[in-house]
Amino acid sequence: MAQIKIAAVIGGGVIGGGWIARLLQNGIDVHVFDPAKDARQKINAILENASLAANSLIDAPRPDYGNLTFCNTIADAVKNASLVIEAVPERLELKRSVYREIESDTDQHTLIASSTSGILPSDLQCELQYPERLLVAHPFNPVYLLPLVELVGGKKTSAETIERAKTIFKSIGMRPLHVRKEIEAFIADRFLEAVWREALWMIKDDIATTEEIDDAIRFGFGLRWAQMGLFETFRIAGGEAGMRHFIEQFGPCLKWPWTKLMDVPDLDDKLTDKISMQSDDQSGRYSIGELERIRDRNLVGILKALKANQWGAGETLADYESTLRNRSSGDQ
Amino acid sequence: MAQIKIAAVIGGGVIGGGWIARLLQNGIDVHVFDPAKDARQKINAILENASLAANSLIDAPRPDYGNLTFCNTIADAVKNASLVIEAVPERLELKRSVYREIESDTDQHTLIASSTSGILPSDLQCELQYPERLLVAHPFNPVYLLPLVELVGGKKTSAETIERAKTIFKSIGMRPLHVRKEIEAFIADRFLEAVWREALWMIKDDIATTEEIDDAIRFGFGLRWAQMGLFETFRIAGGEAGMRHFIEQFGPCLKWPWTKLMDVPDLDDKLTDKISMQSDDQSGRYSIGELERIRDRNLVGILKALKANQWGAGETLADYESTLRNRSSGDQ
Repeated sequence: MAQIKIAAVIGGGVIGGGWIARLLQNGIDVHVFDPAKDARQKINAILENASLAANSLIDAPRPDYGNLTFCNTIADAVKNASLVIEAVPERLELKRSVYREIESDTDQHTLIASSTSGILPSDLQCELQYPERLLVAHPFNPVYLLPLVELVGGKKTSAETIERAKTIFKSIGMRPLHVRKEIEAFIADRFLEAVWREALWMIKDDIATTEEIDDAIRFGFGLRWAQMGLFETFRIAGGEAGMRHFIEQFGPCLKWPWTKLMDVPDLDDKLTDKISMQSDDQSGRYSIGELERIRDRNLVGILKALKANQWGAGETLADYESTLRNRSSGDQ
Repeated sequence: MAQIKIAAVIGGGVIGGGWIARLLQNGIDVHVFDPAKDARQKINAILENASLAANSLIDAPRPDYGNLTFCNTIADAVKNASLVIEAVPERLELKRSVYREIESDTDQHTLIASSTSGILPSDLQCELQYPERLLVAHPFNPVYLLPLVELVGGKKTSAETIERAKTIFKSIGMRPLHVRKEIEAFIADRFLEAVWREALWMIKDDIATTEEIDDAIRFGFGLRWAQMGLFETFRIAGGEAGMRHFIEQFGPCLKWPWTKLMDVPDLDDKLTDKISMQSDDQSGRYSIGELERIRDRNLVGILKALKANQWGAGETLADYESTLRNRSSGDQ
């Protein structure tokens, strides 16, 4: 499987840091640019979590860690990189200015992958001289554990770019999902958005607290969705009569005025305060660092269980381990 | 913990059968009424799956299985039961007629728990002579594995009914979530509804297939939601700056016209065919029985991983095992 040697990551926040961890763990050298004073410290904390997680998750021999280099300019970071991952804040103008700098210091074949969770790649690429090599590669936090990456091309992205990106992300244990039509928020975040809106209404209307909402998710359908999605779960619910039966039985419910999603609650101070206080009540006894480690331990356990069953993310993980084994035995 | 001896289950479909399995596994005798010819066969298939799952999931000594009795009338099923679970199709008039029969053959203290996933308890109970003992106890498929049960009282449901129900459902390893305000679809299904609507649009508009949608869920945020819900996950994403920072950063996105949820696509033959065919392409190589066993194996693995970490559903499971151990040592 085609391996890259050097990647650049522009922006070392939660997402950029997660990318860095995944790349390093796969033996890829990473050149990072992040102007924040505490960037090193934050990235090191992510690397530590990622290392703990990887050690208990992966049974196959891992390649030697790549080298991490902090660079003072975007130009320094991107030269010699065959993949540039952009993970800066979600402001179109900022991203475009980063691309201008990237473009002046890379050759035209360097892939540029944006981590944006919502901006259209056509809007990102329209000022590039070589726009065909830009795509969105939207990962999920924590990037070093969750395999999904949504790949979205813009109007000018070449098919070859998508194929190269698929190969690269597969080689680092991910599950690329090519989103064939360019839509805002792609696929997964449209669902998150829908759930988020509904949750805001529930809190505003005093129907449930943040903790009750989380419990309604993680003790029920969340457990299902870790391994089968919406449709496979509903297929089972339809029983031998099949999906058509399920739709005929439950489809009409959609006509009922259940959700409030036609509208968005005003996120004023009052609602923001309410959410913040409820969230403190729910999770304030843990620091963010503790929550991250709890989350990672759980994800590692879930992924290992699915790996044993060769299903979903576990199948991806098993394939990845077998690639690592082959690569390692090829080295000897 | 207060144990009941006899429960009645009216309706032995996927949900009723799941209830039966969970009750029997907890040493409770179950009297079932289901007029369908193949009811026994379907229930037995569920019991077989449930037994496989329980054997690999639970380490503590289990009580002896309860006895299962098939009854020819509702009257036969409900007499002597201290809990009656109603799991018949979602038609208000049908449910009300079942309650009339239940009420004529039980004393006024027998709990009546409806498995409805959307009808308001106030509408269910309004014709009862003793409406205070009726509540909604909405479980999630597979009922013998997923711990969540939403408890919803109607205008006339007594506080004591809710408390008794909590105690009973906890004693059989579940996680009761009291939904304090009576709203259609309660909490969890409002989210499912929102996601379902969005998914239908994506399929209609050829943005994604059923398989791509499922992959977008199960390789990414589905893994997160098996152990932390929406808010705890977002709290982590906000980092040390906290929930307020997260909302300030991401809240404005809600103003973007991302989702299509203000409207519902027409579930005509064309869309139904499309979904059915895509679902066949995705999962048709497995029978429903095979999918159920794959799902159960995965859920058992996930629950065991969470049990080891004493988190979420795993914490509920660990508590349950410790109750079983105490009960078993008390017997000796």
